[in-house]
Amino acid sequence: MKACVITIGNEILKGRTVNTNAAYIGKFLTSRGYEVEKGLIVKDDLDEIKWAIETANGKYDLIVTTGGLGPTFDDMTVEGVARALELKLVTDPDTLKALKERYNDLRIELTEERLKLALIPEGSRAIRNMVGAAPGVWLDLGRTGILILPGVPREMESIINSAVPLLGTSEKFYHERTEHLEGVMESSLAPLVSRIMEEQMGKVYIKSHPLKSETRGPEIDVEVSAYASTLEEATQRVEATINEILEAADQIRKKRAEQLSD
Amino acid sequence: MKACVITIGNEILKGRTVNTNAAYIGKFLTSRGYEVEKGLIVKDDLDEIKWAIETANGKYDLIVTTGGLGPTFDDMTVEGVARALELKLVTDPDTLKALKERYNDLRIELTEERLKLALIPEGSRAIRNMVGAAPGVWLDLGRTGILILPGVPREMESIINSAVPLLGTSEKFYHERTEHLEGVMESSLAPLVSRIMEEQMGKVYIKSHPLKSETRGPEIDVEVSAYASTLEEATQRVEATINEILEAADQIRKKRAEQLSD
Repeated sequence: MKACVITIGNEILKGRTVNTNAAYIGKFLTSRGYEVEKGLIVKDDLDEIKWAIETANGKYDLIVTTGGLGPTFDDMTVEGVARALELKLVTDPDTLKALKERYNDLRIELTEERLKLALIPEGSRAIRNMVGAAPGVWLDLGRTGILILPGVPREMESIINSAVPLLGTSEKFYHERTEHLEGVMESSLAPLVSRIMEEQMGKVYIKSHPLKSETRGPEIDVEVSAYASTLEEATQRVEATINEILEAADQIRKKRAEQLSD
Repeated sequence: MKACVITIGNEILKGRTVNTNAAYIGKFLTSRGYEVEKGLIVKDDLDEIKWAIETANGKYDLIVTTGGLGPTFDDMTVEGVARALELKLVTDPDTLKALKERYNDLRIELTEERLKLALIPEGSRAIRNMVGAAPGVWLDLGRTGILILPGVPREMESIINSAVPLLGTSEKFYHERTEHLEGVMESSLAPLVSRIMEEQMGKVYIKSHPLKSETRGPEIDVEVSAYASTLEEATQRVEATINEILEAADQIRKKRAEQLSD
């Protein structure tokens, strides 16, 4: 199952806020067997949100959006999604009830800005927000499901976890392991990585992350991952590949030591 | 001047790595008067990189890419950009010379994987990487300039800073200030924010960021920003708006205290 993560917010584009939400969602989905294939970051702007939904709808099994669910004028994710899909906005009765209770308890007026939090696209369902006011929204379009989440991290995390039953189970299991290698240049390991990747034809994925300069005391993290129909199979593939890489790393270090002692 | 930031790397989509590069680039460009309007995150995949370049080319003044410049099979940004623009890859003589010196000094063979680092799209220029092997690339397409940067943060930061003369000067100056407000709900401030935004018609931008629950001891950061033709004007607009917000916050706190003492 393939997923696209859409982040909405000028503060992300400006770099005021680091996009930890997209990382959390990426990890969350990957660990559940989803392949996150694309990320889109758009401004708080109806046309941009509409563009993002149109770009991803029908191409992925799951779209997750984060941001733009609050009470201010620039919180317009729900409206943008509705426009992209030509759906009307309707008031969710459960959310309205929860908002009334929440604000009445505090003797706070239920203004237009607060009532906006209960609006959801027709045909969708609200997912109660246990830590904030704006609910999440789940919209099943058949080919693609859309999960709309707030941008406040603890609210986003709470709702995505409570949405697990809606997301369905991926037919795949994911396993990954990272080995830290010292004294091995990324460019020295590159031919082996290419060879294994070709032999395995997509059954494992190897990615090296250089941590220090290639030439001065090289250090790399090598990450091996696999999706498979059982967790055992994914794990076995990853472990076999890691062993092959560790052996090759030993050879590379030995060869290098010989070169330098010549 | 409008910009799009493209991040290339499976590790970002999976959430293994938080996208601090995009935040750095966003901040870097915003502080120089650019408006970062879109972010795209794509896999290490030629078609996906091609899609990202095609999506942004001609729509923004500047595209900045980060990631996918290393020696491994899945570092394919340069090739992806070249394919999107139907450009040939050529060996940059200065980079080749630098690579030869670098690896010869260390008595390391200049393998195919290492030679790949000197390939750039025809018509572009390499930007020397002072902290790593892969150079940055600058490609001026007229309407849009493309700056290709590595994904290793210290290399990316070094090259973007040395690329400042190529990026040109934005005709606009940017100023922002954030005020921390306690005891004010985002939804209470929302009508004022809407009113100021309407009155100012795009001359200032106000964004509130809730830090704590709306209802339990609310705390928000209110960020006010402006682009203007002089820094003085941008600063003056921001400061005037901040003052208006601080006064309104006082009113909101007073009204709330009265409500609660009724």
